[in-house]
Amino acid sequence: MPLCCRVFIATSLDGFIARTDGSIDWLMEAQRSVPEGEDCGYEDFMEEVDVLVMGRNTFEQVATFDPWPYGDLPVIVLSSQPMSEPDSPTIRVCSAGPIDLVAELEAAGYRNAYIDGGQTIASFLREGLIQEMTITTIPILLGSGRPLFTGIEHDIHLERVATRSWPFGFVQTTYRVQG
Amino acid sequence: MPLCCRVFIATSLDGFIARTDGSIDWLMEAQRSVPEGEDCGYEDFMEEVDVLVMGRNTFEQVATFDPWPYGDLPVIVLSSQPMSEPDSPTIRVCSAGPIDLVAELEAAGYRNAYIDGGQTIASFLREGLIQEMTITTIPILLGSGRPLFTGIEHDIHLERVATRSWPFGFVQTTYRVQG
Repeated sequence: MPLCCRVFIATSLDGFIARTDGSIDWLMEAQRSVPEGEDCGYEDFMEEVDVLVMGRNTFEQVATFDPWPYGDLPVIVLSSQPMSEPDSPTIRVCSAGPIDLVAELEAAGYRNAYIDGGQTIASFLREGLIQEMTITTIPILLGSGRPLFTGIEHDIHLERVATRSWPFGFVQTTYRVQG
Repeated sequence: MPLCCRVFIATSLDGFIARTDGSIDWLMEAQRSVPEGEDCGYEDFMEEVDVLVMGRNTFEQVATFDPWPYGDLPVIVLSSQPMSEPDSPTIRVCSAGPIDLVAELEAAGYRNAYIDGGQTIASFLREGLIQEMTITTIPILLGSGRPLFTGIEHDIHLERVATRSWPFGFVQTTYRVQG
């Protein structure tokens, strides 16, 4: 069984996942208009995920959250530079490239990987390793920041799977990556 | 009565309205999957429009279309550099900035302006002169090109008015610009 690599992420209408300095204040602000109990499909998405792959930057941000938000889900932190192994049985640092990591996770029996963090998503997309993307568009233009899509060098065709929208202005579309 | 300036445009999922060389081959290609008679709301939109404002680049592209697609709708071509006046009673070249042009169109009794072309939309947005944007997202990533949103220097908050999606993969959302 192949591994399905999925993205679940929010962007501004102009395609940024964070400001240039990494700040997601605009996203936190937008989330204040989301009614209690509405998670925009996150829990349903996470129910199918059996491994989470993120970059070092994202990990360092998430590591400041208390409590740790991913329970006992295995988490792989990709880092090309040496970093100390986190003190947790579920978190592992890995310096492999996307292709090798996917092969390794497949061999280990994983089926659904949540690929997170701008650079990590970009490197997986470049290698044609993302099968599905759920993008939630927040009704704001930032003008500048860290783009979700970067380093793509040829057309990538997508198939729309589902679209949802909410009264608080978010629009969420799930795409399957073709080819 | 104030003038309502509206945008109605298609972009790739990564926010480009054309490739770097101006080509919209990817959009033409995508439109081939649209069933005959489906115009994704364009005619309804155009019914309310009483004047069209576009930049010189867009005009030069549209001018190659045969027949001229805008009937007897008044068209203003914005150009900061001298250009010859088109041989048509409905087309006028104008070198005014967005603020002056809006004042002039308002004084002339226009109510709904269709603002088109990347640079023109950007200059109107920068001046806070766009009230409504209908953006149709085409299911493709181009990687590079001419972005719809450019030169924005501060957050612009939007209100989602409506979202539609189609089996051929387009997702269209109308936003009202706040503030």
